[in-house]
Amino acid sequence: MTRAGPAPEPDIAGRLRAGLAALAGIGRDPTTGGYRRYGWTAAELACREWFRAEAAVRGLDCRSDGNGNLWALWGSSWAALPDGGGDVVATGSHLDSVPDGGAYDGPLGVLSAFLAVDLLRARGMTPTRPIAVVAFVDEEGTRFGVSCLGSRLLCGAIEPDRALALTDAAGVSLAEAMRAAGADPATAGLDRALLDRIGAFVELHIEQGRGLAALGGPVGLATGIWPHGRWRCRFTGQANHAGTTPLADRCDPMLTFANTVLSARKKARLAGALATFGRVSVTPNGTNAVPSSVDGWLDARAADEQTLHELVAEVGRAAAERGGRDGVTVAVTAESVSAAVTFDARLRTRLAGVLADLPGGAPGGVPELSTGAGHDAGILAALVPSAMLFVRNPTGVSHSPAEHAEDADCVAGVHALAAVLADLAGLVDPAGAVHKAGR
Amino acid sequence: MTRAGPAPEPDIAGRLRAGLAALAGIGRDPTTGGYRRYGWTAAELACREWFRAEAAVRGLDCRSDGNGNLWALWGSSWAALPDGGGDVVATGSHLDSVPDGGAYDGPLGVLSAFLAVDLLRARGMTPTRPIAVVAFVDEEGTRFGVSCLGSRLLCGAIEPDRALALTDAAGVSLAEAMRAAGADPATAGLDRALLDRIGAFVELHIEQGRGLAALGGPVGLATGIWPHGRWRCRFTGQANHAGTTPLADRCDPMLTFANTVLSARKKARLAGALATFGRVSVTPNGTNAVPSSVDGWLDARAADEQTLHELVAEVGRAAAERGGRDGVTVAVTAESVSAAVTFDARLRTRLAGVLADLPGGAPGGVPELSTGAGHDAGILAALVPSAMLFVRNPTGVSHSPAEHAEDADCVAGVHALAAVLADLAGLVDPAGAVHKAGR
Repeated sequence: MTRAGPAPEPDIAGRLRAGLAALAGIGRDPTTGGYRRYGWTAAELACREWFRAEAAVRGLDCRSDGNGNLWALWGSSWAALPDGGGDVVATGSHLDSVPDGGAYDGPLGVLSAFLAVDLLRARGMTPTRPIAVVAFVDEEGTRFGVSCLGSRLLCGAIEPDRALALTDAAGVSLAEAMRAAGADPATAGLDRALLDRIGAFVELHIEQGRGLAALGGPVGLATGIWPHGRWRCRFTGQANHAGTTPLADRCDPMLTFANTVLSARKKARLAGALATFGRVSVTPNGTNAVPSSVDGWLDARAADEQTLHELVAEVGRAAAERGGRDGVTVAVTAESVSAAVTFDARLRTRLAGVLADLPGGAPGGVPELSTGAGHDAGILAALVPSAMLFVRNPTGVSHSPAEHAEDADCVAGVHALAAVLADLAGLVDPAGAVHKAGR
Repeated sequence: MTRAGPAPEPDIAGRLRAGLAALAGIGRDPTTGGYRRYGWTAAELACREWFRAEAAVRGLDCRSDGNGNLWALWGSSWAALPDGGGDVVATGSHLDSVPDGGAYDGPLGVLSAFLAVDLLRARGMTPTRPIAVVAFVDEEGTRFGVSCLGSRLLCGAIEPDRALALTDAAGVSLAEAMRAAGADPATAGLDRALLDRIGAFVELHIEQGRGLAALGGPVGLATGIWPHGRWRCRFTGQANHAGTTPLADRCDPMLTFANTVLSARKKARLAGALATFGRVSVTPNGTNAVPSSVDGWLDARAADEQTLHELVAEVGRAAAERGGRDGVTVAVTAESVSAAVTFDARLRTRLAGVLADLPGGAPGGVPELSTGAGHDAGILAALVPSAMLFVRNPTGVSHSPAEHAEDADCVAGVHALAAVLADLAGLVDPAGAVHKAGR
């Protein structure tokens, strides 16, 4: 039996390479080879222009929501959509990066969404429910200190007033950055009408550890996200001359900071959790000056919330104790804390079934794994049934220019995402059969 | 007996306050209240304009040498000076600051030099040997990483090619900074002709510890400067995701850095030396990224060179050992190292005699003390008989906006410096008596 209509299967591997190549020149540091695409900067805005062009070439109806997230619709137009009803199946990820990030973290999920649409279209299918490709703004939180800023605002997980007042290292507020990019800060915040139209959200993302590599599969399903957060630890001492102040007379916050870095690592190890100091700001940061203050940001994650909060409290207590001996005061402030996420069980079971039915599916079923990394899907999960697909990362290296995924695994990811979308959107093929029902 | 000619004693305290007030607005950070006058920046150039104006109002012949140091001559003109002969008695200090430095470190020595000239003139005296007031450029080394850059270049203590190629944090070289300020980098380097004209150099400086406060004197004499230096310690690991990389899989250079901060402090304490990490640069410096590298600058000082170099070697060995366990490589590079300085014994003895004869002189003789801080006088001491006067610092706080000296002590410093200059320059008073002979 042949099916009428379908075009030849598109060259997904070729389109994948072309898509990555188109993005490769945007916001890349020539020295490190890493990406520096921070929210609302020229580099991220250029990535969003790429998104609009990809939507346009496919004839998708593209709009920005009030928070700067981009939505490109296939199978309907935004104006024609009825209110509520949860009809839309959304898929996508983010385009921004950490400092010196890799090429895949974020963009792979957006590009794979466009390519999954291509694959389904080439098969001559049309969705019963519209499919939206989405790019969330400022997922990494590099610039304003709060991760998943676009999805948090959309979902009301952060107050717009608080978010708009956040400032970057140069003192520019989110409100000012939005205005500079031609966006209206007054439209920022919870968008219940948009969320009510979304029946499900599926985010594809490169895995950020070696879980799939160990389990032997190119694609996996996320069970949930560890609770995690960022705490700014401010160590305040007294500036002094490094060449003339006796050691005993010093109030050197660098000592307290250093001790806290080591104690956080040890406590995390004992708790089976994660603790990292990856960002530091020293005042005045002069070679021959004892610092007046050191700010260090603690990134902490654990399998459950009690462990996480005990860990952070213990790090704070140890820092204060050491600070007492150094003549240094310590203030620990939560900047963004994300609760544990368990992805929608029904949706996950359904996706597991779809993936198990794929040709070349894993004999023991699709690998399922949790992650310590936050994602926009983790924010949306509070309001919309959400799921995540992971693509294998052979080394587990992430947030690094050395981040990598094999082309074949990325192609497998596109096929897996296409199958999931076909199932969730109730796609009709030219022979007239509806592929599964909706939600 | 009355002396013909002398004007009433000038109000040194008033002129001191006026001079500090004139400088107070230049390069001050409104948030911290500290000064940020780095070599060849607009703030330092504005301080040099102040210097030129002070020289002009006194009718002194002011010139810049080929390295940007300013020299204002009383008692002759630069064109009229014979070659060589060591006739000039020079006094002064620097106008630049560390990040968030205080008001006195540097400017007090320059301002006191002008006020000492005022005092001697008001007494109707004229120098047999010319007196030069000098402001050395970029003493703190904040911008280009090498301290005493102006005096080092003048004395040939750094190769001009190496110095001109030094770059600041924005990648601007010293050569470019000089050009931008209208100076010709081709003139940088050893100026033997100028040095040959200098018979002695006396630098007045606020003390940077509590030595004089403990000894109970407003003014003291420096015996020497501890050997000291700056070493850049580069800790190189592997960037990775802070939320997904198991602790055991990390190569986290922040851990090695933190351990090195604590071990340097401990080793310095055991050696009776000083070790400080006041400056840090993290790459990529993202909250949710294990750093790829951390640069920390070690400032180390000791009473003798063997102790200093053993200390730095021990810190390096301990860092490498810990780095081996962290999967981190460590590279220690000397950026500037200054040998021990013992100030000219004959000059010091002579100054001690002058100071002991002052009204209100300390009964037990003028306090003498060494310092761990580098100074332009320490650089000149290699080629020119040099000495230093310290003015009491009641708290010892230095390299900080809280740095302070009492007006009365600063005035005592001006009187002490005037007496020293009168002695060294063989001043003639209107009654015809030569005050002491020259060198």
